This record gives sequence, structure tokens and C-alpha cells, in this order.
Amino acid sequence: MSTIFTRIVEGEIPSYKVAESERFYAFLDIRPLTEGHTLVIPKREVDYIFDLDPEELSALFLFAQKVAKGIKKAIPCKRVAVAVLGMEVPHAHIHLVPLNKETDLDFRKPKLSPDESRMKEIASGIAEGIE
Amino acid sequence: MSTIFTRIVEGEIPSYKVAESERFYAFLDIRPLTEGHTLVIPKREVDYIFDLDPEELSALFLFAQKVAKGIKKAIPCKRVAVAVLGMEVPHAHIHLVPLNKETDLDFRKPKLSPDESRMKEIASGIAEGIE
Repeated sequence: MSTIFTRIVEGEIPSYKVAESERFYAFLDIRPLTEGHTLVIPKREVDYIFDLDPEELSALFLFAQKVAKGIKKAIPCKRVAVAVLGMEVPHAHIHLVPLNKETDLDFRKPKLSPDESRMKEIASGIAEGIE
Repeated sequence: MSTIFTRIVEGEIPSYKVAESERFYAFLDIRPLTEGHTLVIPKREVDYIFDLDPEELSALFLFAQKVAKGIKKAIPCKRVAVAVLGMEVPHAHIHLVPLNKETDLDFRKPKLSPDESRMKEIASGIAEGIE
């Protein structure tokens, strides 16, 4: 049984993609903490991020760095925060969250629900900002 | 004016060190979210983590991976969470937080205050677990 993220990578479940490489994939969180909240994943199904082999972990964070720079260009924010919790979906994923104040990174607060056209606009804005 | 973290690295301010390399340093957060909560920093003062050059960012996360494995061995937890917020101290730092439930990673909740002997015990336990 594939994880929901593998089904997203394979296009079975639609996503607002912002970046893709041979091994990694980045797409908007559909329940964002702030607008531009993005998930970065390895295509390979590994549950716990620190179980990735060092080369893959390192490449994943380099990919995340490029995505974070795209987010910072597209979304007004002081910086892009990083969070990896991993208790819900058993497929390692990095949250990249545009931050204007520290409390923006609070997974207990009500999530936003931007509509489809806004999500498309955000995703393409971030994608354009990635070098 | 050096950051508080540079003063820790230089030994001006004491810390519960768990690991050190030529370029990186890891020590216990003195106001931990959970026991074993560790901060991983580059010795070089860079405010925003994604401003590190790619090679340094990648090496920092590889160092953090080793520390996280040490934490996982020493502290009973399901996994080690990652968080980078960076709104308080202008010196990039990765929080590594032992997690048993998702709400363990909540920066608004009251912090723990383990006493000095407990902190020393935790730090040396983690240090021993690092390969």
C-alpha cells in the first residue's frame, strides 16, 4: 500500500506542485499554517527522515534550500521555517513554512483553506522563484 | 558583538555539549521542550539557515543526523523531530526534539527545567550514542 505522498508523486492524487527532481518532490500543503506552506519529500518511501542514507538526506536538504529560496521570493515573510515531525504520514516530509512571527509555526492552530485559484497562484509563484 | 551561541562555542558561556566537529557544535537546550532537546549550530555566525552555502548546509544536516541518532539511542522516544525557526537568536540553529507525540513539538508550552546533574547525565548519554 503506497503512502498518500507516493500517490501524489505518481499523480494519482492531484497536488499543487512547486518543484520536482529525479529523487525529490515539493508541493503545497493543502492545510497550510501560512500561505506558501510547502512539503518537500523524497520520492522513495522512507518513514523516518534520519533513516535516509546520509547522501540522500543531504541532497534532500539541498533541494529544500532551493525551494525555500523560491518561497522567500514569492511570499512576503521574514524567513522560511523548517519542521519535520512525521507522526502522521509514514513518508518523510519537510515542512517549509513562511514565517513572520514565531507563533506562525504552531501545528495546533486552525489551518488556512486558500481556494483552488489562490493555491495555483501561490504554487506557480514559488515555482518561478526557484533557480 | 558575538551571538550567545558563539559565546557558548568559545566556552565563555557554559553548555551541556553533546558533540563538536571543526565546523559544528551541538548542546542541550537549557529550556527543553522534552528531555534531550538539543541545538545544533554552525560555528560560523550566519543568521538565516538557508543563507548557508549549500555545502555547509548539507554538512550541517549530516552532523545533525549523527546527533539525532545519538539522541534516539539515549532518550526513549518514537523519533527525533527537527525545527528551525530562528526568530530569537540571530545565529542559525536546528532544534532536535525527542518526540513521543506530535504535540511534544509545541514552542508555546511551558519548558522543562531539568537540574544540572540530570542535564549532565542526558548530555553524556547522547554523546555516548553518537558514532
